[in-house]
Amino acid sequence: MTFDPTDPYVHVRGAREHNLKHVDIDVPRDAMVAFTGVSGSGKSSLAFGTLYAEAQRRYFESVAPYARRLLQQTGAPHVEEITGLPPAVALQQRRGAPSSRSTVGTLTTLSNLVRMLYSRAGTYPEGAERLEAESFSPNTTAGACPRCGGLGVDHDVAEDLMVPDTTLTIREGAIAAWPGAWQGKNLLRITKAVGIDVDTPWRDLAKDDRDWLLYTDEQPKVLIRRRGEPDDSTGRDYHGTFSSARRHVRHTLANTKSQMMRDKVLAFVRSTTCAACHGTGLQTESLRVTFGGLTIAEMNALSFTELVKVLRPVAELVEVDVATSTADSGERTEVAVRLCTDLLARVQVLLDLGLGYLSMGRVSTTLSPGETQRLRIATQLRSGLFGVVYVLDEPSAGLHPADAEPLLEVLEQLKASGNSLFVVEHDMDVVRRADWVVDLGPLAGEAGGQVLYSGPVDGLEAVEESATAAYLFGRAASIEGHDRDPQGWLHLRGVSRHNLVDLDVDVPLCVMTAVTGVSGSGKSTLVSQVLAELVRRHLGQAPDDAEDTEVHLDVDDAEGLESFNRLVRVDQRPIGRTPRSNLATYTGLFDAVRKLYAETAEARARGYSPGRFSFNVAEGRCETCQGEGFVEVELLFLPGTYAPCPTCHGARYDAATLEITYRDRSVADVLAMSVDEAATFLADVPSAARSLGTLQDVGLGYLRLGQPATELSGGEAQRIKLATELQRARRGHALYLLDEPTSGLHPADVALLLRQLHRLVDAGNTVVLVEHDLDTIASVDHVIDLGPGGGDEGGRVVATGTPREVSRATGSATAPYLARRLDRRAVATPRS
Amino acid sequence: MTFDPTDPYVHVRGAREHNLKHVDIDVPRDAMVAFTGVSGSGKSSLAFGTLYAEAQRRYFESVAPYARRLLQQTGAPHVEEITGLPPAVALQQRRGAPSSRSTVGTLTTLSNLVRMLYSRAGTYPEGAERLEAESFSPNTTAGACPRCGGLGVDHDVAEDLMVPDTTLTIREGAIAAWPGAWQGKNLLRITKAVGIDVDTPWRDLAKDDRDWLLYTDEQPKVLIRRRGEPDDSTGRDYHGTFSSARRHVRHTLANTKSQMMRDKVLAFVRSTTCAACHGTGLQTESLRVTFGGLTIAEMNALSFTELVKVLRPVAELVEVDVATSTADSGERTEVAVRLCTDLLARVQVLLDLGLGYLSMGRVSTTLSPGETQRLRIATQLRSGLFGVVYVLDEPSAGLHPADAEPLLEVLEQLKASGNSLFVVEHDMDVVRRADWVVDLGPLAGEAGGQVLYSGPVDGLEAVEESATAAYLFGRAASIEGHDRDPQGWLHLRGVSRHNLVDLDVDVPLCVMTAVTGVSGSGKSTLVSQVLAELVRRHLGQAPDDAEDTEVHLDVDDAEGLESFNRLVRVDQRPIGRTPRSNLATYTGLFDAVRKLYAETAEARARGYSPGRFSFNVAEGRCETCQGEGFVEVELLFLPGTYAPCPTCHGARYDAATLEITYRDRSVADVLAMSVDEAATFLADVPSAARSLGTLQDVGLGYLRLGQPATELSGGEAQRIKLATELQRARRGHALYLLDEPTSGLHPADVALLLRQLHRLVDAGNTVVLVEHDLDTIASVDHVIDLGPGGGDEGGRVVATGTPREVSRATGSATAPYLARRLDRRAVATPRS
Ligand SMILES: Nc1ncnc2c1ncn2[C@@H]1O[C@H](COP(=O)(O)OP(=O)(O)O)[C@@H](O)[C@H]1O
Ligand SMILES: Nc1ncnc2c1ncn2[C@@H]1O[C@H](COP(=O)(O)OP(=O)(O)O)[C@@H](O)[C@H]1O
Ligand SMILES: Nc1ncnc2c1ncn2[C@@H]1O[C@H](COP(=O)(O)OP(=O)(O)O)[C@@H](O)[C@H]1O
Ligand SMILES: Nc1ncnc2c1ncn2[C@@H]1O[C@H](COP(=O)(O)OP(=O)(O)O)[C@@H](O)[C@H]1O
Ligand SMILES: [Zn+2]
Ligand SMILES: [Zn+2]
Ligand SMILES: [Zn+2]
Ligand SMILES: [Zn+2]
Repeated sequence: MTFDPTDPYVHVRGAREHNLKHVDIDVPRDAMVAFTGVSGSGKSSLAFGTLYAEAQRRYFESVAPYARRLLQQTGAPHVEEITGLPPAVALQQRRGAPSSRSTVGTLTTLSNLVRMLYSRAGTYPEGAERLEAESFSPNTTAGACPRCGGLGVDHDVAEDLMVPDTTLTIREGAIAAWPGAWQGKNLLRITKAVGIDVDTPWRDLAKDDRDWLLYTDEQPKVLIRRRGEPDDSTGRDYHGTFSSARRHVRHTLANTKSQMMRDKVLAFVRSTTCAACHGTGLQTESLRVTFGGLTIAEMNALSFTELVKVLRPVAELVEVDVATSTADSGERTEVAVRLCTDLLARVQVLLDLGLGYLSMGRVSTTLSPGETQRLRIATQLRSGLFGVVYVLDEPSAGLHPADAEPLLEVLEQLKASGNSLFVVEHDMDVVRRADWVVDLGPLAGEAGGQVLYSGPVDGLEAVEESATAAYLFGRAASIEGHDRDPQGWLHLRGVSRHNLVDLDVDVPLCVMTAVTGVSGSGKSTLVSQVLAELVRRHLGQAPDDAEDTEVHLDVDDAEGLESFNRLVRVDQRPIGRTPRSNLATYTGLFDAVRKLYAETAEARARGYSPGRFSFNVAEGRCETCQGEGFVEVELLFLPGTYAPCPTCHGARYDAATLEITYRDRSVADVLAMSVDEAATFLADVPSAARSLGTLQDVGLGYLRLGQPATELSGGEAQRIKLATELQRARRGHALYLLDEPTSGLHPADVALLLRQLHRLVDAGNTVVLVEHDLDTIASVDHVIDLGPGGGDEGGRVVATGTPREVSRATGSATAPYLARRLDRRAVATPRS
Repeated sequence: MTFDPTDPYVHVRGAREHNLKHVDIDVPRDAMVAFTGVSGSGKSSLAFGTLYAEAQRRYFESVAPYARRLLQQTGAPHVEEITGLPPAVALQQRRGAPSSRSTVGTLTTLSNLVRMLYSRAGTYPEGAERLEAESFSPNTTAGACPRCGGLGVDHDVAEDLMVPDTTLTIREGAIAAWPGAWQGKNLLRITKAVGIDVDTPWRDLAKDDRDWLLYTDEQPKVLIRRRGEPDDSTGRDYHGTFSSARRHVRHTLANTKSQMMRDKVLAFVRSTTCAACHGTGLQTESLRVTFGGLTIAEMNALSFTELVKVLRPVAELVEVDVATSTADSGERTEVAVRLCTDLLARVQVLLDLGLGYLSMGRVSTTLSPGETQRLRIATQLRSGLFGVVYVLDEPSAGLHPADAEPLLEVLEQLKASGNSLFVVEHDMDVVRRADWVVDLGPLAGEAGGQVLYSGPVDGLEAVEESATAAYLFGRAASIEGHDRDPQGWLHLRGVSRHNLVDLDVDVPLCVMTAVTGVSGSGKSTLVSQVLAELVRRHLGQAPDDAEDTEVHLDVDDAEGLESFNRLVRVDQRPIGRTPRSNLATYTGLFDAVRKLYAETAEARARGYSPGRFSFNVAEGRCETCQGEGFVEVELLFLPGTYAPCPTCHGARYDAATLEITYRDRSVADVLAMSVDEAATFLADVPSAARSLGTLQDVGLGYLRLGQPATELSGGEAQRIKLATELQRARRGHALYLLDEPTSGLHPADVALLLRQLHRLVDAGNTVVLVEHDLDTIASVDHVIDLGPGGGDEGGRVVATGTPREVSRATGSATAPYLARRLDRRAVATPRS
């Protein structure tokens, strides 16, 4: 236990988390350490699951001993001993749904400074009192617009939604928003009783009557006489109470506990920009204060590139005014200079990281994971932390090679300020820059979990069995190009959205196309929004996700859409949002497994149906955790954490169900198998074997069947979707859209994945990728390079053609990198 | 901002927290740094308020960015820049009321290991299934005794409490536990109606009837005929429902929201040891499992010294049995050896720290702050933290010099494992061991807050103005002894409590006596419990605190108690438990201030009474914070934190009240003054001036009048009590009992305090101190040294007499230290 403090290493002994094979390893502190290896080899299990988890557990146990019991429930990592491990901070890509109220400004803490700027140094209307900083935040009671509560939107019923068909009469159900059943009849009777004709088509009713029926706040009580009513002869007279359609909708939203009822009435509601605050969410007094002639809402909307232009003149002021508490403006005071200088320094880092096209007001849910991570990394630079370990998850993912360089410089700065960097990384250009590399392998899952090498990067070259070494030192074979010719074109004309302005672009059919460009150049906008939405609408397909409906398209002309008979988006969105979804359920594989168990002799004897083997059904699941295998524990300082269920210990089923076995394994045992294991175990069950085979094809052999959707990375989710697609693959004219499919993948896995994508093209389909990986770009048939920069400086097609052609284009940020890669490919001599 | 990671210093620039005067300072990491200076000089403001607070803020902001808004509310420390600061862990003495369910075992995390030991390696009744570790904890559903819910006590009504006077009849109110008013009358009528005589004395009623009235669970409905009833002629007949006294008490406890009602019925309830679990709180199955022949409850009751004897044989086993899941005992298996070895190592540290007399089951609320801190320090040794700063608050406080040595060794070990130690310290023997000393001063409060010296200890010698240097290098004058002769004796015979067994001890009258001895020798038991309780009972004084009532005394004879006409306990318990109490309210000084403000012309014109100037009264206080000045914010990972009130910003009063000024200062301004400032401001207000003078006399000139009770250290609370006492001091025959009055005090402040205590003795009173400080012990008239060790090895008088006499005693742990100090005193030549 005694420790030499001059020893610069973290010593890990006996790490057995997940697939790690009793790993003993020493990694240096105050250095940048890259953790490499094929997907599933155990990089995250070591860097996050062991080192980060243990560092955090130790620190929190010491700082907040009363949280200890909760911490124990979530369990300590499986490791015998770690010494020399400082407290750690994780900068992960995947996790944590940011709240929709968080923005780039709050994420980076810039908003606090800007609010202080308006509070202390803004220009106020004559005689107005200075406001507190919090009055400039829509998330505080002091600052929120009283009408919309700071949300910036009004939710209100809309006539066209409540009465979708104005040719109907009230009796025929014109007012769709009215409830049904007795209450609907009651309203009809009252309408009749107050003298409105229920048999006139809606559009022919008087405007006054229509408005009264839809909007009145009155609730008149009306005596309803039932005598002679044909449909209800037993009815007695009664006093009925009227509710307008709006009143009914609002009442339901405020009171119902049923999600179904909510959804039903929400269909009559439309969100509009709040008229009081014009969507800013701020109260009026706050919007009267300006800085540089802008309200805080306007400043929040500026891109960082533009923001700098407002701040710099103030930061550079030499002679400053004296601050007085009654002055209307503090824009030229000492405090303004200080705040602007501080803001400038922070914003500069964001510009350096190629994020100049973002604005403070940008809602964080619309950011890509890579953008979020870079914002967090930049923010850390100012955190002043010393002596901690930053554990990062593929910081280069989603980055154009031109953007990766400045990011590495920022990481160097974090290190230079006295911290250690542990980086899980696949980009060989980043790995080359590390001080130390820990390479795991040789393969994934059970066949991985060993340290193949730990030391300075150079030394890895000698390690024969390392897939990383092969790519790092140019021994690996390049991905083969196919040089296919387009079988036609999709011509888009006059496309406008975000930073794409009146853009013309042509997408070749029946080949593989990569859309490239620096961050913010418009790749996702073009592929995942414009292209996806156009084809979807043309095919009349429903959107994948509720969010997609909002895409507003501005396209002059689109020719060639008729070439597609299907649209498949293989994106990184989770395959499910609860631990109840997993690989097996998503791919349909689990149906085969349940059927298998229901057909065993014992199950039949007991009368167990396939449903019994679903952990989502009450019959056979563990009642404590309702089949989740986990129970949620409230960890004081973390958003919500899961601990193994105390009853079934994660098995998810009740004891009786677990008694049913097939080849000596229970259904829970099958869920605990990796895809590779299951492929052997279920080799003779055709429907299962097919699914498992395609999962192996895309490099997911290491995933456990029961691994909850919430634990999968975006890249894994994407490959699961692809596998599901491949499994049903037929010849066809589908358009496959993929957003950075290689992110999170080791080059060896990239090769595997591309082979599958090329199969799809060979079967007649069209594939379009948003991509940064140069090996991948070099291997496609066609490239569309957007740029030249991000935001307003991007949005144009700077080069298009074969990879070779694009590599020769001038003015393209991609060209020089691609050229270098193509040259290297030409030179590299594959060894195997 | 760029930082040289090989730079071994934490750099602080512009620290202005509390009284710090823009402090710039560099302190080394990976070292033990002592922060010294007189009380109020700013040591804590620098070590805790600045360095620790900032380190924790930074780390939590990075780890849990969503907690950021809450963190911001509590505010960042006032400091311009800190670089090179690692994450920190505070091991403080004062703060945090531990929950009553926490024990030495949970505090040290030993309980987890012991539970695992019983679970995996215990001896089970034949055929019993192994239990999970949590089944051995009364705080889990699996382990708790179903009868008492794990509390170990039963709360039930007691007949003698419900019917205190059995000579009364029911009509006369025999059943005190019955409600009054209408409900009482109703019960009386029902009793009559069911045929029980309400005019027979209780003791003459049939046992069956008495039991039914007190305990029945039946609730019969009885027709009450009111005709002819004399007291309520308007009454109609009704059906009354009966409730037994127990039912009424239970119902009230379960349902009332009124604290008054609760307290009222609690008077009829008695807590008894739960009959099912015999006070262990554990369910029966768990108590059937043994290890070394002991149940876990028995093992928890062993002192650590005894525990070691049970664990060692197992830890030293050479040949072990094979563990099988069906074996009844695992005591000789591998896992038993491993767990016992681990336990032994942890317990050994506690023995080293002189805590061998404690047991795992000891409830943490009965521990002294010093014991708690040492337990936490010992626990940290095993935490595996690396690269953090431990910030400690006078770790040597409450320690006998013989106990200080091993503590310092443990601190050295924490440092040797790669951490930094920042220690606020007054004990010059500890300061001498530091690698670096930061000395603050020159005086307290406004007159302090400057760094007089920062560097290796030796260099401090040259700093003339440093009070610390004077004591550290033997230049300061010793505290003068008085060599008074006792004016009589208090003879105690056959005292038994805790580890005192049939002890005879004599306490001299009208002199100052120090009771000494190592930790756990019985000092507090003798002075704060036995002596205090005997004199209190003799005088018929009420206990200070509800807890005191529980002291059970076993004393054969006590002679001389009649010499005292008053008992004054000046202890370290808080002067109040909410931020509403403070120095000014406690000492009565605030009454004078409020009167002063009510007498101003403006207050009279407005009709403001003195009550208006109390922040505890609705009239004049700020309504947002109800006069607290603070609002509570729920910080996710801290027990509960206060932030300044957003309305009054801490002023506590409403705007109108603050308009009333006296010499241009509002009443809030006065509360913000230090005692020293107020002494000048109120010099001509005699009643205030007297209070303020005595506060200055005990060295509290630096405290602000409004400083909430919750922010005061135990030592400050103790000196406030002493000052309050001195202010009313008269000649007399009082017995003053003080428990370690010098803890938390700089030697210069100790001298000040002792001067005041000697004044009390000179006025005819008797003073008894529990004390470790050698300078103080050397200056008293009489010493009673307990020992020789702690717990069972203590509890005897090993030496008694003048300091000189005791210093020559053999077998006393105190003697050698005292001898050395007396010699040094003889040699030291005071310079001033
Ligand atoms: N939460 C988990 N529970 C069980 N196994 C897991 C979990 N997460 C990952 N694994 C398994 O551990 C192995 C290593 O995974 P991981 O560390 O994520 O690899 P990498 O980071 O190298 O892609 C894989 O077999 C994976 O399926
Ligand atoms: N949801 C959105 N709201 C506002 N602007 C957006 C949104 N998504 C992207 N943009 C803007 O559109 C431009 C192109 O972004 P994007 O298509 O994400 O680029 P890329 O995919 O090349 O990184 C950028 O200026 C970006 O800020
Ligand atoms: N919470 C507080 N608010 C305002 N002043 C404080 C607070 N705590 C301490 N002080 C003041 O700061 C000064 C230094 O106190 P402190 O740092 O506690 O001194 P030390 O630790 O040297 O005894 C004193 O004048 C004290 O009254
Ligand atoms: N509340 C208590 N419950 C049980 N044992 C106690 C309690 N308080 C003290 N003791 C025991 O009595 C002995 C003397 O303790 P104490 O009087 O606190 O010693 P000292 O004041 O000399 O440190 C020790 O063995 C201690 O464990
Ligand atoms: Zn609004
Ligand atoms: Zn379960
Ligand atoms: Zn019990
Ligand atoms: Zn207030």
